[in-house]
Amino acid sequence: VNRITLLTDFGTLDGYVAAMKGVLASQAPESMVEDVTHDVAQGGIRKGGQVLARYWRRYPEGTVHLVVVDPGVGTDRRGLAGEADGRFLVAPDNGVLSRVLESAGTWRLVALEPSEILPAPESPTFHGRDLFAPAAARLASGLPLESLGPSVENPVFLPEPAPRSRGGTTEGEVVEVDRFGNLATNLPPDQVRRTGSVRVENLEVPLRTTYGEAEEGELLSLVDSRGRVEVAVRNGSAARRLAAREGTRVWVGRKGV
Amino acid sequence: VNRITLLTDFGTLDGYVAAMKGVLASQAPESMVEDVTHDVAQGGIRKGGQVLARYWRRYPEGTVHLVVVDPGVGTDRRGLAGEADGRFLVAPDNGVLSRVLESAGTWRLVALEPSEILPAPESPTFHGRDLFAPAAARLASGLPLESLGPSVENPVFLPEPAPRSRGGTTEGEVVEVDRFGNLATNLPPDQVRRTGSVRVENLEVPLRTTYGEAEEGELLSLVDSRGRVEVAVRNGSAARRLAAREGTRVWVGRKGV
Amino acid sequence: VNRITLLTDFGTLDGYVAAMKGVLASQAPESMVEDVTHDVAQGGIRKGGQVLARYWRRYPEGTVHLVVVDPGVGTDRRGLAGEADGRFLVAPDNGVLSRVLESAGTWRLVALEPSEILPAPESPTFHGRDLFAPAAARLASGLPLESLGPSVENPVFLPEPAPRSRGGTTEGEVVEVDRFGNLATNLPPDQVRRTGSVRVENLEVPLRTTYGEAEEGELLSLVDSRGRVEVAVRNGSAARRLAAREGTRVWVGRKGV
Repeated sequence: VNRITLLTDFGTLDGYVAAMKGVLASQAPESMVEDVTHDVAQGGIRKGGQVLARYWRRYPEGTVHLVVVDPGVGTDRRGLAGEADGRFLVAPDNGVLSRVLESAGTWRLVALEPSEILPAPESPTFHGRDLFAPAAARLASGLPLESLGPSVENPVFLPEPAPRSRGGTTEGEVVEVDRFGNLATNLPPDQVRRTGSVRVENLEVPLRTTYGEAEEGELLSLVDSRGRVEVAVRNGSAARRLAAREGTRVWVGRKGV
Repeated sequence: VNRITLLTDFGTLDGYVAAMKGVLASQAPESMVEDVTHDVAQGGIRKGGQVLARYWRRYPEGTVHLVVVDPGVGTDRRGLAGEADGRFLVAPDNGVLSRVLESAGTWRLVALEPSEILPAPESPTFHGRDLFAPAAARLASGLPLESLGPSVENPVFLPEPAPRSRGGTTEGEVVEVDRFGNLATNLPPDQVRRTGSVRVENLEVPLRTTYGEAEEGELLSLVDSRGRVEVAVRNGSAARRLAAREGTRVWVGRKGV
Repeated sequence: VNRITLLTDFGTLDGYVAAMKGVLASQAPESMVEDVTHDVAQGGIRKGGQVLARYWRRYPEGTVHLVVVDPGVGTDRRGLAGEADGRFLVAPDNGVLSRVLESAGTWRLVALEPSEILPAPESPTFHGRDLFAPAAARLASGLPLESLGPSVENPVFLPEPAPRSRGGTTEGEVVEVDRFGNLATNLPPDQVRRTGSVRVENLEVPLRTTYGEAEEGELLSLVDSRGRVEVAVRNGSAARRLAAREGTRVWVGRKGV
């Protein structure tokens, strides 16, 4: 059974997502469609890419991941289809695939081009329905990637901010805040394992293996389910406790540097 | 593969939708169920109908569209099942199907009636689970529409507000606001194409083909993905910019009339 | 066709749910996954259990209900898999299954244990993905319950608060508030049927059969779709009208006791 997953910033209320699902049902009738989320903030390309990183390789090979966070609809940004480690991807060329491309063993991409195989969009403002969903349906139906357009070697790439080392200290930052108020950082896990703690503001936050090693309401750091150093509060919100958000600075190593 | 789509105003949190899905799984086990949205405002019949208009015909023939926005549950309002352009519909008789009926090539409706085929509801307060889901399951399983009840010729119909023309000016209004703050209006697209702009408050908003022709943050009007004249802000919210909502007046044609 | 339903407190935005769905798709590829809700408040064990009560037996036998409301992840709380009246269940051992266990004809439970069949979790903080989803996939694929771990006779059980009778009066409380502001209580339906009303604050709220018997905006009580005594406002919110919430006292019987 073929699966198509769907991540957008459309919300569900207006029926835009359902219009896309209708196209998928019409053009890839044997596929199952699974919702990831439609609650990404409007134009939230970075967050969309981080979410995609959590699930794209958990699905089996052959799955089609359709990602429509597309603030550039109606401009000349390209539409992409691709294959990475056996999973297919369809998305606008705006960097939302960056986390996939940097972690994939192998990938190849094509630029979606109207043709006998892929009809021209009916509306210039709804490529989710008229361009990306038809492309996803074609991949789910087994059409070869190359039939959708010419090869692309230089997709838009949005790097994650890199940590900076000086002396014995590394300065990093919060790169993602989740619903629970957990703070994912870009600090190097190995260095944190050596020092055994992370510094946020004036606090040394001890490294634990899991939430259960901290007291209820206590701050801890750990290596999260994606392998990143995370700052958390057991059964609480580190974001609220520390008034932290994306971009908040964190450190590992000698203090006062 | 048969699909049943599901639109309600139940929210997902309380499990009412899952109770309906359980009935569908029990009574139409071969069907796939796809969520449209459960976030329609309570009793939002007009909005429910507008959302339905976006997707009902995008799905293939044979799809069953189940729509439960039902402020009249527990009164004597009828329950309906129907067929329009090859798609099936199940909904309360409160006008939520109006946008479908006015755009369908052909339609027929029946009033749901308990019978040997359709059991009487278990609870008088949850027809979504006890009446509408069983009816949808029967249609998805191939039972004929006519087996569910007697024919209905006069369903409740909620017209969209009509624009009014006087002299060379047409006054219309905002008929739907979406998540992005785009304002769909009832202005005649042909007239807007002739004048090249829409008037909102004291602003002349130029007609474009797509968002990309406007500057970031600029007001524009265009013909949207459903063929309606829309007022939008590129990568912004026209609703917020203009303090506009459903019912806000808009004009096309000579000023000052 | 096998179905797996999914109830969590993860929200959809961060992609945790999608990571679980990816595991299900990889490990039980023939199954359909259906979302119940991901909007349970964080750690909302009691509410999660009430929601589960609404749908678990509406699904056909063989369905796997996966429930991840797990504030104790990373402690030594057990993971459970079970079978109740022919439906399968997978959840942490924290009481979230209480409403199922008290209403099931028969049930049996096992404690999830890493083995040749069930691999050890990859991350100690994401048992939804690494422990519970794999267990659900195995049950959906037909592996016997007993292969997942040793039998459990004493799961954590959270009783609903009991009503208290004194003289001719019974004092109960609101045990659940739904999206519509309906107040489900623990009052005995038979006693309410005898007296014909429920007391909230100084108001006698008459018992009706359904919403339609009350005027628009009028308070009423009725027996709800789960068989509980409910206080409601027709097309309005009883919670708002009465400033009531979980724990608010209600009475049936002689006044002034």
